[in-house]
Amino acid sequence: MARFTSMEQLRFLLFDVHRVEDLFGYERFAHLDAEQAWMMIEAARMLAEQEMFPYFKAMDETPARYDGKGGVKTHPQLQTIIRKAADQGWIGGYASFEHGGMQLPEMIFSTGHHLFQAANNGVEGYTGLSSGSAGLILNFGSAEQIETYVPKIFSGEWQGTMALTEPQAGSSLSDIVSSALPTNYGYYQIKGQKIFISGGQHEACDNFIHLTLARIEGAPAGTKGISLFIIPKFRPKQDGSLEYNDVYCAGDFQKMGQRGYATTHLSFGDNDDCRGYLVGEPHKGLSYMFQMMNGARISVGQSAAAVAMAAYQASLQYAMERPQGRPSGEKDPAKPPTLIINHADVQRMLLTQKAIVEGALSLGMECNRLHDLTHVTSGEEKENHHLLLEILTPIVKTYSSEQGSRSAALAIQTLGGYGFTTDFPVQQHYRDLKIMSLYEGTTGIQSLDLLGRKVTMNNGKALQLLGAKIMETISGALAYPSLQSCAGELGIELKRIASVVQHLFQFAQKGEIDRYLSDATVFMEMAGYIVIGWQWLKQAETAARKLVEKDFKANSESFYQSKIHTMEFFFRYELPHAAACEKTLLQDGNLTGIRNMDMFT
Amino acid sequence: MARFTSMEQLRFLLFDVHRVEDLFGYERFAHLDAEQAWMMIEAARMLAEQEMFPYFKAMDETPARYDGKGGVKTHPQLQTIIRKAADQGWIGGYASFEHGGMQLPEMIFSTGHHLFQAANNGVEGYTGLSSGSAGLILNFGSAEQIETYVPKIFSGEWQGTMALTEPQAGSSLSDIVSSALPTNYGYYQIKGQKIFISGGQHEACDNFIHLTLARIEGAPAGTKGISLFIIPKFRPKQDGSLEYNDVYCAGDFQKMGQRGYATTHLSFGDNDDCRGYLVGEPHKGLSYMFQMMNGARISVGQSAAAVAMAAYQASLQYAMERPQGRPSGEKDPAKPPTLIINHADVQRMLLTQKAIVEGALSLGMECNRLHDLTHVTSGEEKENHHLLLEILTPIVKTYSSEQGSRSAALAIQTLGGYGFTTDFPVQQHYRDLKIMSLYEGTTGIQSLDLLGRKVTMNNGKALQLLGAKIMETISGALAYPSLQSCAGELGIELKRIASVVQHLFQFAQKGEIDRYLSDATVFMEMAGYIVIGWQWLKQAETAARKLVEKDFKANSESFYQSKIHTMEFFFRYELPHAAACEKTLLQDGNLTGIRNMDMFT
Repeated sequence: MARFTSMEQLRFLLFDVHRVEDLFGYERFAHLDAEQAWMMIEAARMLAEQEMFPYFKAMDETPARYDGKGGVKTHPQLQTIIRKAADQGWIGGYASFEHGGMQLPEMIFSTGHHLFQAANNGVEGYTGLSSGSAGLILNFGSAEQIETYVPKIFSGEWQGTMALTEPQAGSSLSDIVSSALPTNYGYYQIKGQKIFISGGQHEACDNFIHLTLARIEGAPAGTKGISLFIIPKFRPKQDGSLEYNDVYCAGDFQKMGQRGYATTHLSFGDNDDCRGYLVGEPHKGLSYMFQMMNGARISVGQSAAAVAMAAYQASLQYAMERPQGRPSGEKDPAKPPTLIINHADVQRMLLTQKAIVEGALSLGMECNRLHDLTHVTSGEEKENHHLLLEILTPIVKTYSSEQGSRSAALAIQTLGGYGFTTDFPVQQHYRDLKIMSLYEGTTGIQSLDLLGRKVTMNNGKALQLLGAKIMETISGALAYPSLQSCAGELGIELKRIASVVQHLFQFAQKGEIDRYLSDATVFMEMAGYIVIGWQWLKQAETAARKLVEKDFKANSESFYQSKIHTMEFFFRYELPHAAACEKTLLQDGNLTGIRNMDMFT
Repeated sequence: MARFTSMEQLRFLLFDVHRVEDLFGYERFAHLDAEQAWMMIEAARMLAEQEMFPYFKAMDETPARYDGKGGVKTHPQLQTIIRKAADQGWIGGYASFEHGGMQLPEMIFSTGHHLFQAANNGVEGYTGLSSGSAGLILNFGSAEQIETYVPKIFSGEWQGTMALTEPQAGSSLSDIVSSALPTNYGYYQIKGQKIFISGGQHEACDNFIHLTLARIEGAPAGTKGISLFIIPKFRPKQDGSLEYNDVYCAGDFQKMGQRGYATTHLSFGDNDDCRGYLVGEPHKGLSYMFQMMNGARISVGQSAAAVAMAAYQASLQYAMERPQGRPSGEKDPAKPPTLIINHADVQRMLLTQKAIVEGALSLGMECNRLHDLTHVTSGEEKENHHLLLEILTPIVKTYSSEQGSRSAALAIQTLGGYGFTTDFPVQQHYRDLKIMSLYEGTTGIQSLDLLGRKVTMNNGKALQLLGAKIMETISGALAYPSLQSCAGELGIELKRIASVVQHLFQFAQKGEIDRYLSDATVFMEMAGYIVIGWQWLKQAETAARKLVEKDFKANSESFYQSKIHTMEFFFRYELPHAAACEKTLLQDGNLTGIRNMDMFT
């Protein structure tokens, strides 16, 4: 069986670096222990290995495809996958016992999903969307809505989706025009078009529950007039039977990757008989949706890291089996060829992948932990966890997707010409990964969110908290001689963020918002390197402690040594690019605030 | 008609920056003038626009495919393309009049091919391979071989290929085992397997002429025992008729990109009746092949730049037509949306593409010019042109392919979610581009070539010549106030190469070849930034001169202003990463010289 992730790394992140067991001290998670948690992860691994990974290639080669009459053909295995994942609790397991859940911490729930993402990232999307949309109903829906929809979504019988994007609006949600006309019967009459709706129609579920943004007649313009509706494809009647709700799948999108994952165009109310059920209060839809959206953004980052992990593992396996060439300096052609993993450049490509993938996974786990802590703490503590999570969300999404693509390119490169052929999975990983920097907000959108909202929110408190957290890790690492040099460097790198923010603030203060934000993406790139440097120092500190304590029960001595080595690699090969970004950000002129379009001729 | 390249940019590079007209002063090219040359380019543009670009998507969607019995199904348009390209002189036009050519400089020949590469890069491969393999026969073949094969290849009736790679050897050519048994009849009996043979079998040509590396029985081991053979699929008999030469296409490779370009597995001599005709002397095959290979490497770099150019143009067009969102700071949702090209981040993505693409194209043209000069000069002058071309070859191949992929990713990103769908060409460009860093020597191989051979050859003379050329451009640029700052910076950047080489040489001198070469790819990345910085300064200098002279006959004032602006952009956003590479290269330890494979656990 091909290896698509590292269970050792998951255990290390979960138990050693980010200490999931801390959570078991809180009442919500008190029913869990480490052994039980790991058994769940192992069950997810088996499910991924047996039911998902073997179909990874087939689902790419027989893509989800519109049938011309409202249906989308999907791979027959999809139903098995969704139902078995649901049975193990990977759709609703995060929910409270009262709602049929297992009260799993996000740290565990996400680790299960990591296995699915690494094995077959497209199909994981179906379960992840159901999970998130049910969560939205649980949080903001009425008791009746919860009762009607959540159990069916949790069981995998019904598919949940999120329906935001419209053809004319794209990323600009304030331009949404789908309309909701109030009636006297407790529902709204919906009309509108939505595109890029993942999982919006397929063959594995009986019903589709679209969590949809629309504008109630007479609502204010812009984002303050958007409401959230539940719009089922088939609406449940009083007697429990279903009737068609005038939700028509009008087409699909064929894509360069994630081809097994149906991307649909939905048309609501073509026959004026589409009913939408308001969730929560009118005009608050966008803030509700953003709860799901924030989770989805973290999840996309984690999915990107998982796909890059699968590509890394495939290239590592190839490098350990493929003999080719001789060590440099060896001139005797009669000598047998060496395995390519012995070539320095192959090692560089593997280490770069490892540094990116494991760094990104660690940041994802940090976010999961913060998510869990916001659910079990209160007051200022809760607020601090929340702020940290807010500032890390766009970073984990962007670093993982952008650098994950680069990582998968190196996986292809490790295989040479074979990597470009469909005989190996790495090219599929590379194609699949490209969506990650696009959906749930492009890299440009994430970067505006980071610099324009998260850095400035609460008078910069989120950024201060992040700086304090990083300093805490630096202080801890200074106790280990093997980490002192890198710990010192991270302190220097951290200062770049402050100096750049200070430099840019002068423009914001003068009201030059355009200038303040124009290089937000470069700021994001810089922040990504530094935050991942922090995660590497954190992993290395844990490893150094294990080495000092000679505690090799969970993982081997060389496993821990490799963490310190990979951290050094990250600091020497990747982190120096943060200074290059800083140089760009501190420049005098503004080269991207162009008013004359002839500058592109 | 969608725009896939910029004729303005081609004219600027050809006539203004790299002054093709200088060549017309040499006897070989004296029959040409500027107007005539540009007419040829315009004819190539029309051919590309009418016969190639309209089939770009279709050839991807109906890939070249093995028929199970020795044939490969290809798109019916392919024959038209090859024949029409041949008729216009784009297969044999570079050759001398005596060989049926048009004595075109490479600068013009390559510009024609650029148009094909930008319009439909896969099909350009067929003509480029024919061109290169015929050139190999012209240079090293006998008069009879030239007469037998070259005219048929030049006419597009027969396909020329290069057959190097074997399944067990990959990039390690010294491990080639295809065998050639001498006979008494002037030919050798060939047996062997070759994989990844582009254009090795298809429906558009009648015969396939494989320029093949094989080992004559009893030849020395390694690269010094490899000979070059002409192996036709159908061998010409005395009477001019053809008979099957036991060359069987045993399969093909399905790929993530360039899907219209047949990639074949060839089997020679399954029935012991495959005849190979030795080219030149025995055991010198690799050095002959490298003449074609060097040309092919430059051509791959140019092709990468061309595909990235097409992606840039597609994303530029989209950005100029798509309304979405509002300027930052504009809070009124009632205001109409702005075109996305007005967003600073979209401008950054477009300028990054422009800086990469036009920089890479300029370097390709620099190589073409050097190629042409080596053919018309002699003595030390010729040798200097040759050395410069040698050191630039791996750089143009690698910079264009690696950064070209990054550029195409930004084209997708500019379109947002639409960029990921097959409704737009940018995703195909991105997929096609990935092969460029793999074939004709991977990035790792190019980097070893640069640092291990080209930097050290002739006691470092090639590197000295390159440094002198760059200094010359810097001196010229200092005359223009608008360029002084960047010119000064390039001088500083140039010193990084010297300091790194000096640092690494200490390991080479101690015989630590492994250590010397272990970060060759990082050295390549650094060299790429600096060399492209040089090309940008060169373009900006030309533009500054035009602006001072107010010479806007060929291109507009804003065209020239945009060159200076894009140069500044490159210096501010891209070039700073050279310093990051330098930091990595000057580090103390050697993090990729790993002997313990547990470091990847």
